[in-house]
Amino acid sequence: MDKAGGDQGGAEVKAGGQTLLSRLSASSVRPGWTKVSCPCCVSERVEPLVLVKLGEKVGPETKRWLIKLIGAPQTDGGAGLLAHPGEDASGDLIIVSAPRCTLLRATEELGLCKLYRSGDMEAFSYQDRNNFKDSGRFLTLAERQFIVKYELDGLRAQRDLRIPGLLDIYTLQRRDNIWQKLQSAGVTLDTFPLHNTNKLKDLSEAWYSGNQLAQPLDSVNKYFGSPVAFYFSFLGFYTWSLLPPAILGVCITYFSEIKSNSSQVIGSEDDSAPAISGHMLQAVFSMLWSTIFMELWKRRSASLSYRWGTLHLTERFAEPRPGFHGNLGVNPVTGRVEPLFPDWQRELRMALVSLPVVGLFLGLVVLGMMGFYWAEALVQQLNEDWDNMLTQILLIVPSVLHILFTNMLATVYKTVAQSLTEYENHREESAFQNHLTAKVLVFTFINNFAVLFHIAFYKQDVPLLRKRLASLLIFTQIINQVTEVVIPFLVDRFISAPHRTQREDDPQQDKFRNQSSLPPFPGLFAEYIELLVQFGYLSLFSCVFPLTAVLLLLNNLTEIRSDAYKICKLFRKPFFPPVANMGVWQVAFEVLSFVSVVSNCWLLLLSPRLQQMGQENGMSSSNLLLSAVLVEHVLIIVKVIISIVIPDEPDWIRKKREHIEFSSMQALRQSPSPSPPPSPLLSRPASKLSKVPPSEELTS
Amino acid sequence: MDKAGGDQGGAEVKAGGQTLLSRLSASSVRPGWTKVSCPCCVSERVEPLVLVKLGEKVGPETKRWLIKLIGAPQTDGGAGLLAHPGEDASGDLIIVSAPRCTLLRATEELGLCKLYRSGDMEAFSYQDRNNFKDSGRFLTLAERQFIVKYELDGLRAQRDLRIPGLLDIYTLQRRDNIWQKLQSAGVTLDTFPLHNTNKLKDLSEAWYSGNQLAQPLDSVNKYFGSPVAFYFSFLGFYTWSLLPPAILGVCITYFSEIKSNSSQVIGSEDDSAPAISGHMLQAVFSMLWSTIFMELWKRRSASLSYRWGTLHLTERFAEPRPGFHGNLGVNPVTGRVEPLFPDWQRELRMALVSLPVVGLFLGLVVLGMMGFYWAEALVQQLNEDWDNMLTQILLIVPSVLHILFTNMLATVYKTVAQSLTEYENHREESAFQNHLTAKVLVFTFINNFAVLFHIAFYKQDVPLLRKRLASLLIFTQIINQVTEVVIPFLVDRFISAPHRTQREDDPQQDKFRNQSSLPPFPGLFAEYIELLVQFGYLSLFSCVFPLTAVLLLLNNLTEIRSDAYKICKLFRKPFFPPVANMGVWQVAFEVLSFVSVVSNCWLLLLSPRLQQMGQENGMSSSNLLLSAVLVEHVLIIVKVIISIVIPDEPDWIRKKREHIEFSSMQALRQSPSPSPPPSPLLSRPASKLSKVPPSEELTS
Repeated sequence: MDKAGGDQGGAEVKAGGQTLLSRLSASSVRPGWTKVSCPCCVSERVEPLVLVKLGEKVGPETKRWLIKLIGAPQTDGGAGLLAHPGEDASGDLIIVSAPRCTLLRATEELGLCKLYRSGDMEAFSYQDRNNFKDSGRFLTLAERQFIVKYELDGLRAQRDLRIPGLLDIYTLQRRDNIWQKLQSAGVTLDTFPLHNTNKLKDLSEAWYSGNQLAQPLDSVNKYFGSPVAFYFSFLGFYTWSLLPPAILGVCITYFSEIKSNSSQVIGSEDDSAPAISGHMLQAVFSMLWSTIFMELWKRRSASLSYRWGTLHLTERFAEPRPGFHGNLGVNPVTGRVEPLFPDWQRELRMALVSLPVVGLFLGLVVLGMMGFYWAEALVQQLNEDWDNMLTQILLIVPSVLHILFTNMLATVYKTVAQSLTEYENHREESAFQNHLTAKVLVFTFINNFAVLFHIAFYKQDVPLLRKRLASLLIFTQIINQVTEVVIPFLVDRFISAPHRTQREDDPQQDKFRNQSSLPPFPGLFAEYIELLVQFGYLSLFSCVFPLTAVLLLLNNLTEIRSDAYKICKLFRKPFFPPVANMGVWQVAFEVLSFVSVVSNCWLLLLSPRLQQMGQENGMSSSNLLLSAVLVEHVLIIVKVIISIVIPDEPDWIRKKREHIEFSSMQALRQSPSPSPPPSPLLSRPASKLSKVPPSEELTS
Repeated sequence: MDKAGGDQGGAEVKAGGQTLLSRLSASSVRPGWTKVSCPCCVSERVEPLVLVKLGEKVGPETKRWLIKLIGAPQTDGGAGLLAHPGEDASGDLIIVSAPRCTLLRATEELGLCKLYRSGDMEAFSYQDRNNFKDSGRFLTLAERQFIVKYELDGLRAQRDLRIPGLLDIYTLQRRDNIWQKLQSAGVTLDTFPLHNTNKLKDLSEAWYSGNQLAQPLDSVNKYFGSPVAFYFSFLGFYTWSLLPPAILGVCITYFSEIKSNSSQVIGSEDDSAPAISGHMLQAVFSMLWSTIFMELWKRRSASLSYRWGTLHLTERFAEPRPGFHGNLGVNPVTGRVEPLFPDWQRELRMALVSLPVVGLFLGLVVLGMMGFYWAEALVQQLNEDWDNMLTQILLIVPSVLHILFTNMLATVYKTVAQSLTEYENHREESAFQNHLTAKVLVFTFINNFAVLFHIAFYKQDVPLLRKRLASLLIFTQIINQVTEVVIPFLVDRFISAPHRTQREDDPQQDKFRNQSSLPPFPGLFAEYIELLVQFGYLSLFSCVFPLTAVLLLLNNLTEIRSDAYKICKLFRKPFFPPVANMGVWQVAFEVLSFVSVVSNCWLLLLSPRLQQMGQENGMSSSNLLLSAVLVEHVLIIVKVIISIVIPDEPDWIRKKREHIEFSSMQALRQSPSPSPPPSPLLSRPASKLSKVPPSEELTS
């Protein structure tokens, strides 16, 4: 019902952003947008990319200054973008777009690859732009929007500056980050990219509306950016990779059923052997499977990264992230003047501050669990001794307290991890994100698995583990379906639908404003950790419950759709920087796949049937242990060898990469002066200035 | 005595090769050397670099043709070198030198780094040569000589060609490797670099004549090339790294002596604990030490590689090695026409041929050992049963047979490994060498350690292992000293000395010919494997015999000198290509350091005192085993973390590397056409033709 409404709305605004903007610009006789500084970028249509929401108390004076700043050329310290004041000069919106040259120059700066006339993907070069195919329009919506954010975030005061209409305490110092300052001063409340209704409709139709099996990953990449596309590629790849273990699991369960049924008839003489070997087969298979899966994913990830032009990102050569601070100096790599922060100091901070603090929190998790077990034992003892109303109520107290404690700890930890990572002062945004993710990830993972590990390794109670695991798998699945399909549907029905009906006649600004009423996208952390945790159930304890893979496969098939629905419909469009891979998540999956060998071997050893079998064959328990250790070592060595033997990138990508290396080597040798010695006086203050290639007159 | 003679000889030919060559060229009124093709390379003095020894039956016609070929410019299919016919046109020597331009162009092609005017090491660029410091003479002797070999090896027939004075079966086809053909036709017998008496004298004085502690590594690199310099750097680094474990070993031995003495007086109640903890301390220390040592070595290796200008070698972009064959095609990386061989085919050959064959040989080693033990048991049984002269002689038969079998196997294996690696058809010489070395290395190592592993893991007899290890250590040390110091001294005294006395008046040719009478240098394999084996004794079984490190330290201090003496005096000067690290040896040492954790934990577990202690403390043997496994896992994790946390290259090198990456990225972006699409018609047939930079007129 409401989907049909959405369709109609989309059909009406045919030709997407362009149409609606031409209307918007027509209403204010074109100069609603700031002027373009270079002649090549003048165009009839301006596409609204990003919305800046201003604070309520911001005066028109400040808004005018801000629009001017956004529209000023980069050589004058502006962002070189296009700004539109919305309905009137005093409204609380600024709509931002980007002219062609700014986009192209930023593309070069980010190191994005684009299709060259030779048919290969090559790192984009502004000077050589005419040799790139379709060079006016090759940037995806996600890239265009990220570039706007990148330019806004990169705004720095060129000299001390008072912002009109603000108090003196907000005066900008030289090299201050303007956008951060504006945010802390309450001038800008939010900066977020705008949805393109038309494209979104096409995307959602191809993605989750029908019952298609393949995801439109290229379109996802174009619309949301590579991090989202990588997440969904991984989700899809992982889901299909679950097929082999799922099939094996079904077979083993089926045959061991038959066996146990027939053995009940014939008598239970040598019935345990096949079931054991089935479990062992399953465990060994899943241990090797996880490595092969990760290696193949790495290859696929490299291909995708090539396809999406993010194989040669140059984040380390670009300006540092806005939050980075340090003493001004000459960067020895690029020769630019920028804040520098010594690596050893960062490492020291990580070793002496972050590591102990994270360790402390992990200790608290373990302590909490031990406290829970202790309290539960105590309460049960009390209940046995007294057995009245009060003690029965007391029975649930430990669980409640433990849940409260865990949740509180998690909340506190998130803040602490954020400040720790800020304190570590990473230069690149990706490094920052990776370190933050790693911290939260370890904590969340331990939090999820502490109880299972406790049962497996300390209590050594395989039946309890099996029970717990099965209930967790089914329970999480139901919770997932509720939180990811049912609740979204209800939210969409009762919260999103009302503002969708008013589409037809409203001014464009109100539609934009409506987007800002959606909650911001919470990031991909929750999605990834969900996958990691289920991968953990699968690989760590696979031999305990052979049907894990089947359940996960079913779960993930719906997960793809519900996640897609969520990101398309229920949240504001998020900014995502271009990335070349899954970052720290890949490492997490790989580490898990190695830990799984240890846990599986241990669980197999614990299995009562194996113990019994060993005794029957006259093996002492220490010989049994010894052979388990031997098997474990062999498996780990095989896994290491597999991961070395399967190259991380396909041959054709390696060749393309080497070809680029060769070309740049040749270019370096033939350039007049391969590396100007970094001298502080001559160095370009920022990449903004170096955008006009110095040797253009020689080559053109 | 003979050293003094050497000194005088050296002093007489002061100013080294130059003087003796000016005399040589004066004798034949300069045109003894072929003409230089480019004017900038004309110089008064020509330094003889390489000697080519011809077969006895080679006619003057062929020799003239060969000299012409060597002297012809590269554009005409020649080597672009300088050749001198020796005494007369019919002699069996050709002396080869290289003009400046050929040297510089090859330097660029090999990707050697040289000191730039900015003070950094930069990849040499022929076009930019004037900005490099001292660009006429920055090449080391080893580099100049290797370049001559490189050019000779790279000679390929440009069209079908009959070699004058040879049978028709030796007619060259187009693209045939000329030098290989000449060798197989018996025209050239030997090609080897000439010693520079003067430099050699200086080097040997600084290296091993005095009692200096530091080695003149830079001079070694200059004279012999980077592989030799890396070997000696590693040897030195390793020797000094032995100090901490040696000191610890002495302390532990000393204190456990005291303890055991005092406990003999007081009574043996709780005396075993400290000794055990001493052994454990030693074992844990040496396991962690080996990782830290390897990580620090990698950093040092990177610094050395930067210092010696081999950090950015471009072997993969150069012509394939002479033995490489395949169908002609366009290399997708460089765009040149050259033989291509698909990677998957090579991998298939490795997996389906090399791997099974190597496995077979390893199996034969194990089989041999088992046969030996079986035969020995049999013979001893026989001896006990019959006990006569015959059976007593029979007692030594198994050992003799085993030694014979092992040696035969090793000889056969070396040939097989060589052909297997040839069959794998590696494109780069370094890949070929690494694969060959890896094959021989695994075999030799297993051969050396099979017996020890058998004692440790199968017989589980720690005292026997200790006895065996001690005897091996002392025995190998004595053998080493004999083979590496005493025999060399004798050889030098009675074989080298006679030809050294005739230095003064002989014609230069005879002195050169004398060098060819020395045996060729057998390569560094034997030296490295010796280090690896002793590193194996140290790390694998360190907890058994704590004084290992002390013995090895003493051994290595003399080893440095004897190895240096050997390479300087007893052999022909060998060719060594520039390399960036130790190659496969580094991996071997690292793998060993991880295997050592397993073996040490196992040996500690076996130690009777620990078993006894466990029983006293009421631990069952399987609990003891469990804690050993736990300790092992923790140690391996700690080692993995250490090796990740310590970066493989120092920060300053990382910065310089990134700076170069940044510069080449910039250059690529600003070059007129970053990557000409590889088209077979336009592609340059070989790097020889592309040496005149196409854009010189634009930039100069």
